[in-house]
Amino acid sequence: MINEHGGDIYKHKNVIDFSANINPLGLPRGVKIALMDCIDKTVHYPDINCEALREKLAFKYSIKKDYLICGNGAADLIFAISVALKPRKALILAPTFVEYEQSLRAGGSKIFYYNLKEDQHFQLNKNFLNCITSDYDMIFLCNPNNPTGEIIQKPLLMQIIEKCHKHNIILIVDECFNSFLENPEAESVMQEVANYDNLIVLNAFTKLYAMPGIRLGFGAMSNMRIRELIEKSTQPWNVSVLAQEAGLAALEETEYVTKTMELITQEREFLITQLKQSGYQVYGSKANYIFFRGEKGLFEKCLLNQILIRDCSNYRGLEEGYYRIAVKTHEENEKFLESLHS
Amino acid sequence: MINEHGGDIYKHKNVIDFSANINPLGLPRGVKIALMDCIDKTVHYPDINCEALREKLAFKYSIKKDYLICGNGAADLIFAISVALKPRKALILAPTFVEYEQSLRAGGSKIFYYNLKEDQHFQLNKNFLNCITSDYDMIFLCNPNNPTGEIIQKPLLMQIIEKCHKHNIILIVDECFNSFLENPEAESVMQEVANYDNLIVLNAFTKLYAMPGIRLGFGAMSNMRIRELIEKSTQPWNVSVLAQEAGLAALEETEYVTKTMELITQEREFLITQLKQSGYQVYGSKANYIFFRGEKGLFEKCLLNQILIRDCSNYRGLEEGYYRIAVKTHEENEKFLESLHS
Repeated sequence: MINEHGGDIYKHKNVIDFSANINPLGLPRGVKIALMDCIDKTVHYPDINCEALREKLAFKYSIKKDYLICGNGAADLIFAISVALKPRKALILAPTFVEYEQSLRAGGSKIFYYNLKEDQHFQLNKNFLNCITSDYDMIFLCNPNNPTGEIIQKPLLMQIIEKCHKHNIILIVDECFNSFLENPEAESVMQEVANYDNLIVLNAFTKLYAMPGIRLGFGAMSNMRIRELIEKSTQPWNVSVLAQEAGLAALEETEYVTKTMELITQEREFLITQLKQSGYQVYGSKANYIFFRGEKGLFEKCLLNQILIRDCSNYRGLEEGYYRIAVKTHEENEKFLESLHS
Repeated sequence: MINEHGGDIYKHKNVIDFSANINPLGLPRGVKIALMDCIDKTVHYPDINCEALREKLAFKYSIKKDYLICGNGAADLIFAISVALKPRKALILAPTFVEYEQSLRAGGSKIFYYNLKEDQHFQLNKNFLNCITSDYDMIFLCNPNNPTGEIIQKPLLMQIIEKCHKHNIILIVDECFNSFLENPEAESVMQEVANYDNLIVLNAFTKLYAMPGIRLGFGAMSNMRIRELIEKSTQPWNVSVLAQEAGLAALEETEYVTKTMELITQEREFLITQLKQSGYQVYGSKANYIFFRGEKGLFEKCLLNQILIRDCSNYRGLEEGYYRIAVKTHEENEKFLESLHS
């Protein structure tokens, strides 16, 4: 399988990985301890209902436990949704996270693209509403969007939800990078699932708690028929004992999250300023990654300096010269900046 | 989600779990160490190609690395196969592992059942060959079968493979309990994938290495078109860093496997003898679990003694009075036997 994503440290060894958007603070101490403590529990099958984890998530997000479903990473749920609901016609943005498209192909859907425009800084605007017609069964949105880091303004997003509801379109809003925004709760539509039975909101532990290797994501929806279809499209034991225990521990890590926000806010600003000063065009970048345009060959140049960045030229709607980097520690960020001028 | 399976220690607490067929020796020491040692690696995405693990598996099973695919447990691959290949008509045994049926439903298949007969001790015989017609696109076999523990005689299995090949039927042989047989290699058709491009053989680390909570299974096939379809039907990161490292360590555990075989052989014989002496009808039971018929209400009776057994009445083709127990340590097995006479 060819890796079309960032984070491939198996191909590129001994690099500082700016290509995967993972919290630079590393695995929280509480999660490490929980993993060590639960090793003996792996002789049992995992709880297929993730009861304890869903209960804690329900409390954190102030939504009903019944609305929540867990997965082997959010990507597991993305595939489960497309395969279970098999939309005839689906609409996605370009550029965006490639797994929406891949999952829709697996579900046998015809895929349509809404092109975000460079001259609008790849921002979604009101024109998108005109494209929401009964012709589509499903729409995937990523908020903030990957790779651009641009958010959908909340009033517009609510209009989109409303119009999708009116036209019987399942709308998936992927909030996997929501936690890194300046005001996560204000931007989230997680709680709106109670009001709209066509809405599915996804999130993951992957980025915020720096645990992509453990695999844990979750989704929220109030439509129990859809939930049942999704559950039936995957094995019952998709979330490991280790992932469930790691998740429970992660949700206790409030201080870690505070520190994360401080670091990301400061370093995001630092990187954006520095990149702009060096003449690069920076777009969006409201989460824990910076999306920018630069000279061709920058990926290779950085790699020579053991810096792995995300070459975004394989995103639909982009071309050579677009790059994405994670916001990392100050020391690491300086190394990246140095590599630009090497 | 209602748990139709064994191993639900989350509903039934403080029991000795005979309902999941897991190696009673527990997690191998090397696997525990590997898990502890790899915790820091979970800040990276897993290797989507499971290169190191597939290489080691290829060596162990003397087959090409390219033929191997790993999954989040074998159940992950079962769903991926059915969803990717979407057979119009599929044939499965009754009784057998329920996930073949569930996955085929997810794939939109019409499912047909071949009933194993009690008066033939639920053994598959030559008559099955007559049912293999071009009418089917896919057949799932479980060898040894779950819950019966009966094996398909190798000459018959080879005829089945041959006939499926002739009729362009994808044949999946699930060998998840193969390791517990008296002669695992002689019963396996894993290496036959090189000769038959319609054959997929599945196996897992789950039962042999007592790691159902970690989630790791694998499959072998020589048909690269099928392999690609399966890969495209799931997320790229389905096998966690923890599972890959656990698998690598498990494959070093030769002494553990030897001890396991000694224990299972001895205790299987002990349980079968004792059950027969107590007047129970025992079938098959050639792996690490015993399938038997007994009085109604035995599940509840055992549970009163903190013994959780598998009530098999919800298997298609079975009814009340069929039970399955795992072969566990001598001390535990004695507790189970005591509970029968309590």
